[in-house]
Amino acid sequence: MKTQKNHTPFVIDTSKSKHTVFHPVSIDKVRFTDKFWNNYREMNKKVMLPAQYHLSEETGRIDNFRRASGKIKAPFKGMFFNDSDVYKWVEAASWVLTSDPDKELQALLESVINEIADAQQADGYLNTYFMFEREVERWTNFDLHEMYCAGHMIQAAVAHYRATGETKLLDVATRFADYMFIHFGNESDGKKFALDGHPEIEMALVELYRITGQENYLNLAKYFVDARGYKSLDVSSTGRTSSYYQDTIPFRKMKRLQGHSVRAIYLNCGAADIFAETGESDLKTALDNMWESMVNRQMYVTGGLGSRYEIEGFGTDYELPNGRAHTETCAGVGNFMMNWRMLLTSGESRYADLMELALYNAILPGTSLDGKSYFYQNPLSDDGEHRRERWFTVACCPSNISRTLATLPGYCYTTSDKGIWVHLYGSNQAELCLPNGKQIKISQKTDFPWSGNIRFEIQTAEKFGLFLRKPGWHKGGEKIKINGEVIQPEITSKNYWIVDREWHIGDIVELDIPMPVRKIASHPFVVENQGRVALMRGPLVYCLENIDQSIDVRLISLPSTNEFQDKFHPELLGGVVALHGEGSIMTDKLEWEEKLYKPLDSFPPRPQQTVPIMAIPYYAWANREPGAMQVWIPVI
Amino acid sequence: MKTQKNHTPFVIDTSKSKHTVFHPVSIDKVRFTDKFWNNYREMNKKVMLPAQYHLSEETGRIDNFRRASGKIKAPFKGMFFNDSDVYKWVEAASWVLTSDPDKELQALLESVINEIADAQQADGYLNTYFMFEREVERWTNFDLHEMYCAGHMIQAAVAHYRATGETKLLDVATRFADYMFIHFGNESDGKKFALDGHPEIEMALVELYRITGQENYLNLAKYFVDARGYKSLDVSSTGRTSSYYQDTIPFRKMKRLQGHSVRAIYLNCGAADIFAETGESDLKTALDNMWESMVNRQMYVTGGLGSRYEIEGFGTDYELPNGRAHTETCAGVGNFMMNWRMLLTSGESRYADLMELALYNAILPGTSLDGKSYFYQNPLSDDGEHRRERWFTVACCPSNISRTLATLPGYCYTTSDKGIWVHLYGSNQAELCLPNGKQIKISQKTDFPWSGNIRFEIQTAEKFGLFLRKPGWHKGGEKIKINGEVIQPEITSKNYWIVDREWHIGDIVELDIPMPVRKIASHPFVVENQGRVALMRGPLVYCLENIDQSIDVRLISLPSTNEFQDKFHPELLGGVVALHGEGSIMTDKLEWEEKLYKPLDSFPPRPQQTVPIMAIPYYAWANREPGAMQVWIPVI
Repeated sequence: MKTQKNHTPFVIDTSKSKHTVFHPVSIDKVRFTDKFWNNYREMNKKVMLPAQYHLSEETGRIDNFRRASGKIKAPFKGMFFNDSDVYKWVEAASWVLTSDPDKELQALLESVINEIADAQQADGYLNTYFMFEREVERWTNFDLHEMYCAGHMIQAAVAHYRATGETKLLDVATRFADYMFIHFGNESDGKKFALDGHPEIEMALVELYRITGQENYLNLAKYFVDARGYKSLDVSSTGRTSSYYQDTIPFRKMKRLQGHSVRAIYLNCGAADIFAETGESDLKTALDNMWESMVNRQMYVTGGLGSRYEIEGFGTDYELPNGRAHTETCAGVGNFMMNWRMLLTSGESRYADLMELALYNAILPGTSLDGKSYFYQNPLSDDGEHRRERWFTVACCPSNISRTLATLPGYCYTTSDKGIWVHLYGSNQAELCLPNGKQIKISQKTDFPWSGNIRFEIQTAEKFGLFLRKPGWHKGGEKIKINGEVIQPEITSKNYWIVDREWHIGDIVELDIPMPVRKIASHPFVVENQGRVALMRGPLVYCLENIDQSIDVRLISLPSTNEFQDKFHPELLGGVVALHGEGSIMTDKLEWEEKLYKPLDSFPPRPQQTVPIMAIPYYAWANREPGAMQVWIPVI
Repeated sequence: MKTQKNHTPFVIDTSKSKHTVFHPVSIDKVRFTDKFWNNYREMNKKVMLPAQYHLSEETGRIDNFRRASGKIKAPFKGMFFNDSDVYKWVEAASWVLTSDPDKELQALLESVINEIADAQQADGYLNTYFMFEREVERWTNFDLHEMYCAGHMIQAAVAHYRATGETKLLDVATRFADYMFIHFGNESDGKKFALDGHPEIEMALVELYRITGQENYLNLAKYFVDARGYKSLDVSSTGRTSSYYQDTIPFRKMKRLQGHSVRAIYLNCGAADIFAETGESDLKTALDNMWESMVNRQMYVTGGLGSRYEIEGFGTDYELPNGRAHTETCAGVGNFMMNWRMLLTSGESRYADLMELALYNAILPGTSLDGKSYFYQNPLSDDGEHRRERWFTVACCPSNISRTLATLPGYCYTTSDKGIWVHLYGSNQAELCLPNGKQIKISQKTDFPWSGNIRFEIQTAEKFGLFLRKPGWHKGGEKIKINGEVIQPEITSKNYWIVDREWHIGDIVELDIPMPVRKIASHPFVVENQGRVALMRGPLVYCLENIDQSIDVRLISLPSTNEFQDKFHPELLGGVVALHGEGSIMTDKLEWEEKLYKPLDSFPPRPQQTVPIMAIPYYAWANREPGAMQVWIPVI
């Protein structure tokens, strides 16, 4: 294969973007030394990605490409968007190579990329569903994910190129992008109207622009954002409304997230990418407004998004049902991606807070601790019936977790003229390039997320600022030491502690952020959560699961004076800090005689009775025997 | 038109059914003298039915018949099941004629019936969607409601015949039923497998059997129940599972309601109708099991059914979200109909309790107080965005309310060898036929549902038992008097007070059931309702609506010691008893600074502060300016 030398594995490459405040860090320059993340990342490589590959073969997803290139004769198999699962596997596997070169994986990747490339049509078109008998249907129904698949193909190509320097898939991507640029756009330019029913192509095209420098791609991405919001998508055959597709209000006028949550959040990612290039303030205003709406009225305490199963999307403000939370794992990934983009353009730590929240509580719950099964929806309350599955007919979530895990090192730090910015805490060894070209070696040691004690060792002598994110969950009482001496650092307006000095090799910065258990209440308009609290500690949301209690969790309330003790259990759920406290028994199942409704005064007065209770991190639920689970616990 | 003399307007005619304990009462023999119901019934005739007719014309529903008969050339308009709306209008309008003869309405009915009859094909087939270009698709997809429409046509014919004695539509019905009997059934009989994707045909065929005496119809109804439950319906193109269609478990083995709630409950109605004829105990066992499951684990406190929008149906046990309760008005109607059938075959008052509950709290909320708009879903909590609509693309609910109101007199009483049974309370003048042929005149005077004070006047001298339903909501303290003297009547094992004697003309029976306000709690596994109560008084569920409070209802909790005072407001919402008490302000909106989540300890301690609150009957909500509403109120 052709390779180019000049490739750097940035997750998204904003290094030349004019409207960002940070420089990204290459994935291969941060090496985790952290058990928590190394376990997940090892599992991603050894369990998740191989299984996803084999399932893609088993279910005909790769055969669909072989069929399209004429290598086999067979009917198309599965859903019309199944190509995207293969592309997302290619993307995730490519990023894995960045941190962990592996000839076998690279060879497998090349073979899959060959199948993809061979399926491309002479004119650049590529979608295995719209072949042969369905060729006439190309671009006739924008809800059939042609552009969504194209977008994931481009992102796979970007990842493969950035990881390996090889251009085979990138060439496929540019050919298809050129095809789309020629055909779609403003009618005044002699082109045809088009929109992606499921946004994704927007962020892909911006990245392709960043690699190639071809403004056509950026312009096409802009077109796809600009054309939206005029009810132009034909929804007559979909059983959906225009709002499901974010097509009722022009993007720049949108005030809240609407419709299908993954579509909504991917669209915002694309718009944020465009903003990073253009700096158009109306885009930023819309992104800010939607972010405020999300955080203050539309988001689960876990960072999960999506309140309605029937549209896999947003409901009204404050509509956040727990048991039927839709909270698709992909929407958690989208939330993470959107906040990364907003962090890069603003430098505000609140976006990194949201990344951290979504990562631990909306993305990680999506996989079992053994990496063998996945959640599509992540409810905040359950009776024990919701269990992870090995795979889905609509299998978008597994590869979305995989590409997040594979790229994680790229999200921990950024750099700027002022120095190094630490966004996500976790043990690692990093070599970070300041904008002036100077390479800085730095290590981070911590038991995060179990402890807020984080120790940095500076391994390069240089003057620069070390900017440490002050987490949104921080409640004071932190201690920061340099070489053992307590300091009182300033805090930037964007909420980072500043430790700025001429560093010597071996300088130690210690950050100790207390992690008391927090009882979180929610706005009274979230009626389901009235009189309840969610337990949090550090970045983690906790839950009660039946298996850890002596009675069903649905019978437990918290005395308002309850204090929790945290304790690390090395053998539990791969090693977690659990929270121990006392619960009050609200009622007795027997009192109910299996009735659904009873007059309140028909119950005998009950003696106050308490039981020890134990809460575990929400991400780790449903990894043992099935039983009820609750995040929001009534307080008495 | 041809007429027959021998017709009696029974709602459903179980007068010759072998396995019932009661004889039904003809609709025309009970005349309401009650403001509450006369208002609704007058509105049904004057507002609802005319509007439904005009909208059926406007939307092409009747033109579809004219198209099918070749009278007009036009494309089919609307949904594939739109014929059923016309049939249900014919049914409701026919029943109206029973109580209230009206030449104009009768003429209109006849003209619509002519359109229907003219659209019938030579072989008996009738469905305006599957005409011309779609003729080849007949019976190829059992989810396209061909039998559902046929069922409603038969029920319309039954109603029209019973109301008027005219047989024109009945002849159409028997022709189509004969067609179906010839074609569908066991393959061993040389017939083709068939099932209705949406049950309805079953109860219609049993009624047709009752009119005609043709066992073929009963047998076909049995076949449709028996053939179900083997995953035989092809769901591949529907995006649904077999459980949505009640097709995973043979009926006799079913233990709980599953899938689409209206389909589920209509199926049970049909099976109950079959049981009334056959007495097959396995059918009864299944019906009983499902009833227990419904009442104890699957039903809203209002009698509403359906917890999931995405399937318009049942969730897991105890899954009863309030804001996104689906609780389709039609499912309330189905609940009412099913319990009527179970009452007729068992004589147990608990079924009449459920009819009463569903009537006032799951059906009546479906219409505005002016009869001009309808709810499809009836949430138990809302932020003010859910409003009634004039009509729906899927317009099943309006005519279902209309046929319930039109038939209501037929549900108040039954008779048996022992005498007269009173199931639903309300002022009326009745002439009831005992099985021995003796006509008994009796009147009922009451302010029910506002008061439990009910006065009967016996207007025929005869010895018979008067059986008065002891409501499930009754909590003791009743007084029963005969001609002013307090008596202590026995109670049957099926929960009716017995007043059995030789009656004289002018004898007065007074029943006084206290109606204290009840605070209802729900099983702790309904996690949304933990620590909350619903207010009930008599048969009515109450709610708090913003317009009646000084602060948003979502900020209000009830002090556990709170006592409510009831007060009749003649000018409010057509005249209602409202409940007055004190609410406690849980939190202050300002404290929240528009945040969604805050640590509990970030709130300053707040002084206990109370506000007067007023609850209105749930059926009357959303008739004034939009605002939040809550049925389940937190208790502190």
